[in-house]
Amino acid sequence: MVTDKFNPEESTLDQDPLESDGLNLDPQGLIEKDPINLEVLKKLTGQSVLSVDQFDKELVLEVCKFAALLESKEIAKSHPLDGKIIITAFFEASTRTRLSFESAVLRLDGKIISIPEGKSTGQAKGESLPDIGEMFNAYADCVVMRHTDTDAIDEIMHNLRVPLINAGNGTGEHPTQSLADWFAILKWKPKLKGKLKPENRIHLGILGTPGSMRAVNSFLRMSLLFKDSIKKISLISEMADPLGEELTEKVEKSGIEVFISNDVNDVVSDLDIIYMNSIAFLGDSYKSLDSRFKLDENTKMKDDAVVLHPLARLDELDPMLDGTHHNLYFTQAHGAVFVRQALFISILNRFHKIPKDEIQ
Amino acid sequence: MVTDKFNPEESTLDQDPLESDGLNLDPQGLIEKDPINLEVLKKLTGQSVLSVDQFDKELVLEVCKFAALLESKEIAKSHPLDGKIIITAFFEASTRTRLSFESAVLRLDGKIISIPEGKSTGQAKGESLPDIGEMFNAYADCVVMRHTDTDAIDEIMHNLRVPLINAGNGTGEHPTQSLADWFAILKWKPKLKGKLKPENRIHLGILGTPGSMRAVNSFLRMSLLFKDSIKKISLISEMADPLGEELTEKVEKSGIEVFISNDVNDVVSDLDIIYMNSIAFLGDSYKSLDSRFKLDENTKMKDDAVVLHPLARLDELDPMLDGTHHNLYFTQAHGAVFVRQALFISILNRFHKIPKDEIQ
Amino acid sequence: MVTDKFNPEESTLDQDPLESDGLNLDPQGLIEKDPINLEVLKKLTGQSVLSVDQFDKELVLEVCKFAALLESKEIAKSHPLDGKIIITAFFEASTRTRLSFESAVLRLDGKIISIPEGKSTGQAKGESLPDIGEMFNAYADCVVMRHTDTDAIDEIMHNLRVPLINAGNGTGEHPTQSLADWFAILKWKPKLKGKLKPENRIHLGILGTPGSMRAVNSFLRMSLLFKDSIKKISLISEMADPLGEELTEKVEKSGIEVFISNDVNDVVSDLDIIYMNSIAFLGDSYKSLDSRFKLDENTKMKDDAVVLHPLARLDELDPMLDGTHHNLYFTQAHGAVFVRQALFISILNRFHKIPKDEIQ
Repeated sequence: MVTDKFNPEESTLDQDPLESDGLNLDPQGLIEKDPINLEVLKKLTGQSVLSVDQFDKELVLEVCKFAALLESKEIAKSHPLDGKIIITAFFEASTRTRLSFESAVLRLDGKIISIPEGKSTGQAKGESLPDIGEMFNAYADCVVMRHTDTDAIDEIMHNLRVPLINAGNGTGEHPTQSLADWFAILKWKPKLKGKLKPENRIHLGILGTPGSMRAVNSFLRMSLLFKDSIKKISLISEMADPLGEELTEKVEKSGIEVFISNDVNDVVSDLDIIYMNSIAFLGDSYKSLDSRFKLDENTKMKDDAVVLHPLARLDELDPMLDGTHHNLYFTQAHGAVFVRQALFISILNRFHKIPKDEIQ
Repeated sequence: MVTDKFNPEESTLDQDPLESDGLNLDPQGLIEKDPINLEVLKKLTGQSVLSVDQFDKELVLEVCKFAALLESKEIAKSHPLDGKIIITAFFEASTRTRLSFESAVLRLDGKIISIPEGKSTGQAKGESLPDIGEMFNAYADCVVMRHTDTDAIDEIMHNLRVPLINAGNGTGEHPTQSLADWFAILKWKPKLKGKLKPENRIHLGILGTPGSMRAVNSFLRMSLLFKDSIKKISLISEMADPLGEELTEKVEKSGIEVFISNDVNDVVSDLDIIYMNSIAFLGDSYKSLDSRFKLDENTKMKDDAVVLHPLARLDELDPMLDGTHHNLYFTQAHGAVFVRQALFISILNRFHKIPKDEIQ
Repeated sequence: MVTDKFNPEESTLDQDPLESDGLNLDPQGLIEKDPINLEVLKKLTGQSVLSVDQFDKELVLEVCKFAALLESKEIAKSHPLDGKIIITAFFEASTRTRLSFESAVLRLDGKIISIPEGKSTGQAKGESLPDIGEMFNAYADCVVMRHTDTDAIDEIMHNLRVPLINAGNGTGEHPTQSLADWFAILKWKPKLKGKLKPENRIHLGILGTPGSMRAVNSFLRMSLLFKDSIKKISLISEMADPLGEELTEKVEKSGIEVFISNDVNDVVSDLDIIYMNSIAFLGDSYKSLDSRFKLDENTKMKDDAVVLHPLARLDELDPMLDGTHHNLYFTQAHGAVFVRQALFISILNRFHKIPKDEIQ
């Protein structure tokens, strides 16, 4: 154990805690010569964020650019969420996602009412989600909900009249995760914002099955918006038809080439981005992936390939990769707080709290 | 799922989230030409709220009037609970009630330390409630407690020296619920504040057993204070003697006529107010009520009858009634936040934080 | 039940809730003619607090003196932790300790993200502590962690780059408890700060086994720093060799005489301080102590002996002692909030927020 005496020469307060192992990227690259377009962000005002399908590419870009601003400047000092209450209703428990949302709110001086897990709620007595939604109207200005049931979003929306952010619904979607994913990707290669020549477009690998993995589902949907910078998507899944009818049609419409495999080693040496996730939903429980879907130091990645993972991870992603430049997943995790800050400010229309010279 | 693109024309921020299905009532009716009497409210300063029996009618009225003020004006901006810490100790878990209290505190700029359920506490290691109370003295300015044991209030009061609010103790009481109940009733018919001619008095129906349902017990006790506006109370219960000795005596003293039945259909067509609750305590668990105690669209209510329910509900109250003018229960639920705000400001003596022109 | 009407003559707001049964001590005694030495406290800036072994006597004294200042003055009004977020990660559940830390933070206007118990976390999905630590870097400015695993501290420190406070790790340590223990002892006898003549030194009794009881382990380690005011330590334990090799060597180096027994009655009549704890760790569960390690009204203590207990207690410490002047344990518990305040201000370097005339 680290039981040395205190050493003022090594104060952690002089360091930036976001300087993690792996890639550390300057968010300024995303907003240089490309000021934030407030009119686009205002589309979010008073709105619920339920699905990636609500977003177009322009809005994804502006949310990520706003997150970049919030990461680079100390905007928090202007107390953008002053007086606002957000409920974090995690009927499906989660440390990382709940804490990420709560940190985003508290950094902006908002207040939190927390439901850390479903057993401590009236749902245990049989209360319905529409009734819970009706109650929430009186308690808060915005609700963040995670739930094991895919239908939970539809149910609570029945009576909810304050904006809802979907933080994961069963095998459905996890749209704010996708925004965090693309925030990391765009920090890594800001030129993906535009239209690339075919020979410069990237090859994106996704390990997982959209039908049973909500982060994968949402990420794939958002990636289709970037068809001008992606030449090919390789999907590595246990399923013969991991896309299903609706997604197959969407992918075909996008014009992006698709390749499907059940072993990551088939394609890994050609991938620019490898997106992976540890767990698949099976009813109310989880299932972890087998060895054909794992990355470690021996995986033959391109030298400049980056790995994304929404974490928590199990053994599919070897911590030996943490110290390498393939590690974009720590940046991805840290950036999620700023993406969520951008969403709260936009949804609750608190742009006037941001200093004028920072934003148009 | 609602996955349409964002539509700025339909921003929820332009709506009042308290505008629910059912009756929507203007709280101003309660305070028009009847200013708040601060001297009465000051009786609460530094006091614990344990039982309805501590209240007289005058104090109930002033708490409800203060809640009406807090609902109609943006008093929160004067930060009435600034610097105050409240512990919400829900040793018996509950979403709705805990969140209602926490929202009340946060809206007034107080701070919350939350115990969302009993298993995560020292009680699991065998810590006694008197010891927990002794600790609480050092941690907070006020404690809100819910507990499965009826005796829990007595036990924690042994050492507690900051005010306690009883948020439900076993089969005992739930006094702040009754204040929320009567706040809704008085918004509905402000004339019930005074003395009505016998022919104008109302017929109150209560579905449930006071001995095993704390919300019913407290509501009945508080209703007896309104003997000048209630002509008859009909109690619909499975029990032959749902009142027991002490309550029977209290009811007799009030002079209100009492009728006891075991089927709501016996009396429902004559009731002005129908108060119901879904669950009865049986030891540490719950028991739901059978069909003789249910309301739905086919129940032959008076046209202007209103239904109260402290929620959460099970199937005894059909959601088909939500959209009708019988639905006073949503108003009742939303008003609970303001009643609790009124209590905190009164108990912690923060009247000086309310702008002078709003209050005498 | 206390169901009298409200009685404004007995407002609890006129009382000091810290005025408990037992000894009530003026913290001023600790700082009179002995101003706080800020240079010593600054050793803590940006540092993690993991073990008592990091402390020397001088630093223990300054932390206790700073706690005494915080207990006597209303320093909180200068908002020392304004804008700072602290995570209270109680993977091993606890009411008292979590609430004590959260109250300390909130009183100083910091913000809390709370993990009330381990089951509601990503750890349940198999997330590793190093990964959790990596996430925490993005969420907060300081982390307080309690964990059932002794190794948990080492694991999370692998990636954590914000300061960590160890609030109890398995059978390891509980260093902030020891600071609270010595804060109470020094308030009781401020002269223990200095070097006493041998005949004035005290006899310290410890009931418990350092190897399986972390509070006892940390308390013993800190007590060895006070070798100039302790003449003898009596250890009452079920184990023949309760100290083990490393601690035996440490104790021998200190020059303090040690006596080991398995019955408190062997030595209790000569003890000045009796330190006890209720529970020993056995793997993930607890074991309570038998009758040879209990105190009640019949125990033949010295008239001016004091009892310390980190609470929660079971039946080893009879509540009949609460009302006696032997009871230093309530003062000990209440003081813990101020010790933790002192740590947060020091670790996060917020001394500039304390009014100049209060501190050098």
